Amino acid sequence: MKKRILTGIRPTGKLHLGHYVGALENWIRLQEEYDCFFLIADYQALGDHIDEMDNIKIAVRDVVLDWLSVGLDPVKSTFVVQSYVPEHAELAMLLSMLTPLGMLERNPTLKSERERISNTSLSVGFYTYPVSQVADILLPKADLVPVGEDQLPHIEMTREIARRFNNRYGNVFPEPDSLVGRVARLLGTDGQSKMSKSIGNVIYLSDDADAVNKKIMSMYTDPTRLRATDPGHIEGNPVFQYHDAFNTNTEEVNDLKERYTQGKVGDVEVKQKLIVAINNFLDPIREKRNKYENDISFVNECIEEGSAKGKVTADKTMSEVREKMGLNYVSSVN
Amino acid sequence: MKKRILTGIRPTGKLHLGHYVGALENWIRLQEEYDCFFLIADYQALGDHIDEMDNIKIAVRDVVLDWLSVGLDPVKSTFVVQSYVPEHAELAMLLSMLTPLGMLERNPTLKSERERISNTSLSVGFYTYPVSQVADILLPKADLVPVGEDQLPHIEMTREIARRFNNRYGNVFPEPDSLVGRVARLLGTDGQSKMSKSIGNVIYLSDDADAVNKKIMSMYTDPTRLRATDPGHIEGNPVFQYHDAFNTNTEEVNDLKERYTQGKVGDVEVKQKLIVAINNFLDPIREKRNKYENDISFVNECIEEGSAKGKVTADKTMSEVREKMGLNYVSSVN
Repeated sequence: MKKRILTGIRPTGKLHLGHYVGALENWIRLQEEYDCFFLIADYQALGDHIDEMDNIKIAVRDVVLDWLSVGLDPVKSTFVVQSYVPEHAELAMLLSMLTPLGMLERNPTLKSERERISNTSLSVGFYTYPVSQVADILLPKADLVPVGEDQLPHIEMTREIARRFNNRYGNVFPEPDSLVGRVARLLGTDGQSKMSKSIGNVIYLSDDADAVNKKIMSMYTDPTRLRATDPGHIEGNPVFQYHDAFNTNTEEVNDLKERYTQGKVGDVEVKQKLIVAINNFLDPIREKRNKYENDISFVNECIEEGSAKGKVTADKTMSEVREKMGLNYVSSVN
Repeated sequence: MKKRILTGIRPTGKLHLGHYVGALENWIRLQEEYDCFFLIADYQALGDHIDEMDNIKIAVRDVVLDWLSVGLDPVKSTFVVQSYVPEHAELAMLLSMLTPLGMLERNPTLKSERERISNTSLSVGFYTYPVSQVADILLPKADLVPVGEDQLPHIEMTREIARRFNNRYGNVFPEPDSLVGRVARLLGTDGQSKMSKSIGNVIYLSDDADAVNKKIMSMYTDPTRLRATDPGHIEGNPVFQYHDAFNTNTEEVNDLKERYTQGKVGDVEVKQKLIVAINNFLDPIREKRNKYENDISFVNECIEEGSAKGKVTADKTMSEVREKMGLNYVSSVN
C-alpha cells in the first residue's frame, strides 16, 4: 500500500513560478509514488482574509486550474476543499481539547506570523490555525508531509498531538514524518524578495506571453553593472535564477553565464532568451489551462469528487476517533 | 410560530437540587411556551475534562435520565448531544474567523474561569469555548437564551458575532436575547458554598430516601445557635432555604421559622420535616427515573432522535451560512 501524503495551499490567488519551484514541481513527482491528498485550505484562508470571500471563491477555481495545468492528476491524487469536508472542523474541535495553549504560544513559526498582523485584528481562527492544520494532516492519516524547514515546528506539534491522542484513547493516528525538500525560494521579478503575490513581483503560471515579456524585460538584474561591457554577477541575479530553474537548454545558460561574467552580453539578450525559455515552459501549461477553462464542469468534478473521496476517508477516521474516545453514548448504554 | 430557546448543560455528573432551582424548574415552564433546544455540551465538557471521558459518557445518560425525570419532555423539546451534530464544530470554525482574539481576552466571565485552571494545563479548546458556545446558540437560530447575570457577557458576545456575520454576508442569525431569571443560587449542605458536585455538598435528584436522610441530618444550620432554646437565624441557613424551595406546606414552614427564631424548636425537628418535604418532592422524580432506567432504549431514542432533529435544523442553518458566505465553489463557476 502506498504511503499517504497530505499537503496543500491556502486559496488566496493564482499560482506563480514561485509556487512551481517551491512546491508543485515536487508534488508532481510525489504523486507517482504516494497517495497524495492536495488540500485547498479555505478555512485557513479565511483566518486572515475574512473580508475577501469573493477572492477566495475565485482562487479556489484558479488553484484547481493551476494544479491541473501543471500536471497534478485528480485520478492519481485527491483534490480536497477543506470546507467541503467539515470533519476537518470536527477533528480540530476535538484536538483543541488535547492541545495546551502553551503549545501555540511557544511555536516560533506562529509567533513570527502573528507579528505580521496587528493584534486587534487577529482572529481566534488565525490564532488557533495550527490546531486546524494538525487536524488537516491527521484526518487522512497522512504518513508524510512535504514541508520547508520553517514549517518543521508544525509537524513536531502534529506528532505530539497524535501521540497525546493515541496514548489516551488508543492508536488511531500515525505520527507523520516531514519530507523536507531543498528549500527552493524563488526571487521575485524585483530581485529583492521572495516571489509573492502581495508584493506584486510575480510571474503567474497563467500569464500570457505578452505579460511574461513585459515582466521579464523590466526585471531587476545586477545593480552593480552599468554597461553591457561591465562584468556581471550571477549570484542573487533573478534573471539567472530563472534561467537555472526554467531554461532546459543548459548549454545556452552556461554560455550566457560565461559571457555575462565577462561583460560580453547585454541584459536584453539574457532577458530575451529567458522570455523564450519561460514561454517554452509555460506553453504546455497554458494549453492545458485553456482546455480546462473551457471545461469547467470537469473542474467542478475535481472539486466535488475529490472532496467526496476526502469525505469518505474523513468519515472513516472520525468513526474511529469517536469510538476510541467513547463519543458514542447510545451504544454504551444498551 | 414559537420562539426558540437554546440552553444546556455540560455532562460532568448527575444533576442535583441546585440544578433544579437554578435551571430545570425554569426550563420545565419554558418548554410549554417556547421551542426549546436542550443541549448536552460534551465538546465543552472535554475542554477541561479530557481525561474523564468515562465520566462524561455516564453523565450524558444521567443528564437525560434527570431531564426526563423532572419533566422535560422530548416531544415538546429537542434534546441534542453536541458532538452528535458536528455542525456545532463547523460553525464554530467559521465564526472563529469573525471573532477578534481580543474579544476572548476581554470577556470577564472567561477571565475568572481561566483563573481556576493553571495556565500550563489550559487547553486551546477551553480557551476558545466561548466561540463554540456562540455557535451552539446561533446554529439553531435561538431567539432567547436563559442565563444568570454572570453569563450576560457571553450573550453580548453572541449578539456581536451574529451582527458581524449578518453585516458581512447577509442576514442569517437572529441576535438572541437573554432571558435573565432570578438567580436561584442554592447553598450546599455545608451551608458554605453554592451546591456543587466538586465540593461534595450536594443532594442529587437521584438520591434515595436513605441518602437524603443522612445528608440532611448532617446539614449545617445556624452556627451561632448552641441549644434548641437559643433563638436561631433563618437567613443564610440552608435548612430553611431548602424548606422555602421544596416544602409545599407553607403553613408548616412559617410555623417552623417562627418557632426557630424564638428558640422553640430543635434542629432535629426542622430537619426531619425537611426530609419529608424533600422526599415528597423527589418521590415522583424517583419514580420516573426508575421507569426510564428500566427503559434505556427510550433514553437512547431521546438522544438519537433529538440529535437527529437538531441535525436537521443545523443542516438548514449551515446551508444558509455556506450560501451567504459563498462557500459553494462549484455553483459559482457553472
